[in-house]
Amino acid sequence: MHAISFIQDLAVLMLVAGVVTVLFHRFKQPVVLGYILAGFIIGPHTPPFGLIHDEETIKILAELGVIFLMFCLGLEFSLRKLFSVGATAFIAAGLEIALMLWIGYEIGQFFGWSNMDSLFLGGILAISSTTIIIKALSDLKMKNERFAQLIFGVLIVEDILGIGIIALLSGIALSGSVETGEVFSTVGKLSLFMVVALVIGILLVPRLLAYVAKFESNEMLLVTVLGLCFGFCLLVAKLEYSMVLGAFLIGAIMAESRQLVQIERLMEPVRDLFSAIFFVTIGLLIDPTVLVEYAVPIFVITAAVIVGKVISCSLGAFIAGNDGRTSLRVGMGLSQIGEFSFIIAALGMTLQVTSDFLYPVAVAVSALTTLSTPYLIRVADPLSQRLAGWMPLRFARVFAMYGDWLRSIQPQGQSALLMAMIRKILLQVLINLALVVAIFFGGAYFAATLAGYMAPWVSHENLQKALIWGGALLLSLPFLIAAYRKLKALAMLLAEMAVSPEKAGRHTVRARRVISELIPLLALVGIMLLLMVLSASILPTGELLLVIGLVAAVVIVVLWRWLIRLHSRLQIALMETLEHSQDQPHH
Amino acid sequence: MHAISFIQDLAVLMLVAGVVTVLFHRFKQPVVLGYILAGFIIGPHTPPFGLIHDEETIKILAELGVIFLMFCLGLEFSLRKLFSVGATAFIAAGLEIALMLWIGYEIGQFFGWSNMDSLFLGGILAISSTTIIIKALSDLKMKNERFAQLIFGVLIVEDILGIGIIALLSGIALSGSVETGEVFSTVGKLSLFMVVALVIGILLVPRLLAYVAKFESNEMLLVTVLGLCFGFCLLVAKLEYSMVLGAFLIGAIMAESRQLVQIERLMEPVRDLFSAIFFVTIGLLIDPTVLVEYAVPIFVITAAVIVGKVISCSLGAFIAGNDGRTSLRVGMGLSQIGEFSFIIAALGMTLQVTSDFLYPVAVAVSALTTLSTPYLIRVADPLSQRLAGWMPLRFARVFAMYGDWLRSIQPQGQSALLMAMIRKILLQVLINLALVVAIFFGGAYFAATLAGYMAPWVSHENLQKALIWGGALLLSLPFLIAAYRKLKALAMLLAEMAVSPEKAGRHTVRARRVISELIPLLALVGIMLLLMVLSASILPTGELLLVIGLVAAVVIVVLWRWLIRLHSRLQIALMETLEHSQDQPHH
Repeated sequence: MHAISFIQDLAVLMLVAGVVTVLFHRFKQPVVLGYILAGFIIGPHTPPFGLIHDEETIKILAELGVIFLMFCLGLEFSLRKLFSVGATAFIAAGLEIALMLWIGYEIGQFFGWSNMDSLFLGGILAISSTTIIIKALSDLKMKNERFAQLIFGVLIVEDILGIGIIALLSGIALSGSVETGEVFSTVGKLSLFMVVALVIGILLVPRLLAYVAKFESNEMLLVTVLGLCFGFCLLVAKLEYSMVLGAFLIGAIMAESRQLVQIERLMEPVRDLFSAIFFVTIGLLIDPTVLVEYAVPIFVITAAVIVGKVISCSLGAFIAGNDGRTSLRVGMGLSQIGEFSFIIAALGMTLQVTSDFLYPVAVAVSALTTLSTPYLIRVADPLSQRLAGWMPLRFARVFAMYGDWLRSIQPQGQSALLMAMIRKILLQVLINLALVVAIFFGGAYFAATLAGYMAPWVSHENLQKALIWGGALLLSLPFLIAAYRKLKALAMLLAEMAVSPEKAGRHTVRARRVISELIPLLALVGIMLLLMVLSASILPTGELLLVIGLVAAVVIVVLWRWLIRLHSRLQIALMETLEHSQDQPHH
Repeated sequence: MHAISFIQDLAVLMLVAGVVTVLFHRFKQPVVLGYILAGFIIGPHTPPFGLIHDEETIKILAELGVIFLMFCLGLEFSLRKLFSVGATAFIAAGLEIALMLWIGYEIGQFFGWSNMDSLFLGGILAISSTTIIIKALSDLKMKNERFAQLIFGVLIVEDILGIGIIALLSGIALSGSVETGEVFSTVGKLSLFMVVALVIGILLVPRLLAYVAKFESNEMLLVTVLGLCFGFCLLVAKLEYSMVLGAFLIGAIMAESRQLVQIERLMEPVRDLFSAIFFVTIGLLIDPTVLVEYAVPIFVITAAVIVGKVISCSLGAFIAGNDGRTSLRVGMGLSQIGEFSFIIAALGMTLQVTSDFLYPVAVAVSALTTLSTPYLIRVADPLSQRLAGWMPLRFARVFAMYGDWLRSIQPQGQSALLMAMIRKILLQVLINLALVVAIFFGGAYFAATLAGYMAPWVSHENLQKALIWGGALLLSLPFLIAAYRKLKALAMLLAEMAVSPEKAGRHTVRARRVISELIPLLALVGIMLLLMVLSASILPTGELLLVIGLVAAVVIVVLWRWLIRLHSRLQIALMETLEHSQDQPHH
């Protein structure tokens, strides 16, 4: 049979991986490192030399491994968890990623590497490793302590930011240059895409999965899940984003379905199989001569990762209001790189923009920092005591005052409630506007195709544009009205707060009404102007625009109630899905 | 990324498979047919034409699908179940397979197909489909009735005989001719290999799995299971058997481990994923023009399958002593072909000995017989009543008499116990002898290699042979002694039965002792002679043989007790594994 050489590859791969990981497990080292070592052993650079024959097929399976890895990461991610992580996670993750991107880039430049290598090095160093941290914390039996919960929060934010980094690096690699404007436009488009995909996905996918689950067949559920996963990856790839991003997003969408536990149980062996192949393939690429040649950069980068992450994460945690000891433990726990780094390094290789040495260097740094993680966590406590002892009394007092001050400015009671309400309204407005922008973008994207369909009936180009633009406006109406109503509520709240009867006297009511009517209207006008700019390519001429405006006004007046009901139905469906999934235990 | 076209293939495959299988499930048709239809739709022969681009990789994954399918069939197989199925299973399966092999071959010849096509057609028609039967019986809620249990017994025997057919057809395809002697030698070698693999496998594999399971990591257990599976497939392929056989055997070995339930749970999604790809790939190959062209053969073969299987299985069940109604139900239930047929058809294609049309024909026949199965099962009861009504009274009386006669000749009470004991002893002797033969075969197989190792110390060829042959004898001693002792026990039993004090009078004791000493000695001498013939290539000359014999005699005398203890330890280990696995629920 012609598959025999491939089966032989798989046999060698799994047998060596099995033996090495059993050994690693016995000596309490992470299994991931075992896989990499297994790949190193059977790889072409070490005796007995090249035990893998059909490397092409193995590499394709390895890419499947990345997809399944990210898909399962998405399954473990949850929007609810993202909404509920505190300030610590955002501040620490933001500081860490900004600092590590910069440090990575600077180290690359220092060693005279190319701009692209330096940039990817920054990306490689930015994200810590979820799997290795979870392994280390459960080995140390610290998984339920407070600092561990903070670390998990940081990791969730890191996941989302890491997805952004992957999208950014792909964009930069394809365009070949870094321009601030382009970065912002990439990030903007990416956020827009993510919001729209999540909203539509959470409306559709959990319902579909619930329907399939009714047949009570694991096989059908698995096939459906895989079909959705690959299909979405394909869609994302067609939009020129990385498939890795697609896998994560569809995973996050499915995390909101009621079948989450079942899906996780079914996908676990599939992920383990393919991710084992992925990690072994990493080992295959390691050339020991490269490691020797780049020994100095490897040690410099390792030191930079540990020092940089400890400082940035500890500082972030401290700024967010944690005590020194907890902050240091958070920083020590996050001081390594792992699977995200491999994925970013692999991205650079597949896009052929990074040098060959970057991958082995990343693997070596990951191995060294992984091995040091448990010791760092254990040393955090004694170190924080030592530091407290060394610190001059005045410093300690400043630190303590910072904590007190932070607590004093935190909104309490009613104002905290108000802040939460304002945040929620703003989020809803943003989501609705994102959907509107997406509809107009979609119209512009498919304008040529749509015009082609219309050509037999409507030949005039300007009229075609008017129809497309008008159609987009019509589709957007429910979301625009919802945004307007939310903005009005917000404006009333703000008017209530800003115009107090003591100051405005008898003008109070009128002043409040002016504010509460003016703000949403001005905001809507601003939004429409923005939309016109964004959809410039399909914007019809003035007269037609006027006609469209009139039609829209009539529709709004006639269908006002129906549009509101439609939107609230969609909103309820979304909320129901999000709340149902809370019944399920998350890990 | 270069994997994008492959991901696109997977996406299309899984999405179409998902939709079609959901529809099939809704209309209560087997999911397997849905997969095949999905493949047909996305295949190159039907619009929208060729949605699959990287067919090579998909085909490799499909071969993995076959391996996982057979592996999981092996997991569900169990030696204990094979030992406990009754006469019905053996007689019905034997009759069915013999008849269908012959009918298939004759139909092929009738339509003027090549010898090889006709032979493979016989193989394709021989084995019924476990998955389809289980599906049909559970849909009809008849899974726990007596005839269903009989059907499951037939299926177990069919699995083993099907494995034999695959090995035989591969052998015939490679040598290109059918010779009775060769067939017997193939079957003999295959049985020997299976016995040895099972004994050694059951001694080693469950222990290894138990060790790995101690780490309580699903991932490690999965990697180990996959490594063993692929590794064993590779070994089997190196011995020039089909990898399918290897997958089934290692599955059957793992079925005796304590981790069976866990392994099944882990392997289920992996099997579902890859077997979906396999079944879809089957559909890809179907060309509707072939189906139209071969419409007549397809209907003839379909009719032959249904009529042939109903008659042979019903007859087999009736001969084994079941009543007419149950027999007919057994026959009706088994009247279809399925996954084994696809595997055999695929085998013919990969070995490039069958024509292109055979595969689609097999698929079409499988589809038709699958669809008819539930109706046939439902019609069995009314039909048996109708038949009983039509039957002339004299016929009915003969049938009833057959049943009475059969019950009268069945051993009862003490003699039934004796028969069971004799069967058990013979089985043990056969297993021990199989191990001995395997040791000598192994010696002959590796003679050149071993001689190469010895060359620096022992240069004389005859001396080398003597050492190898002597070594093999030494290794075989525990098994030879065990066989001798079991034979002696058997001889004593037989002597007791054959020489009754009434007939032999005062010679009773002496006659019994002569028989009980003579039989095992004669048998052993016969075995040694057989071994000498089988190992002719490494048999040393006469004097050296004498020396070896003397050494062996000394070893036997000195180490008699130790050898017995060694063997009984091995036996206990084997029995423990077999009994432990009984604690686990089997499906």
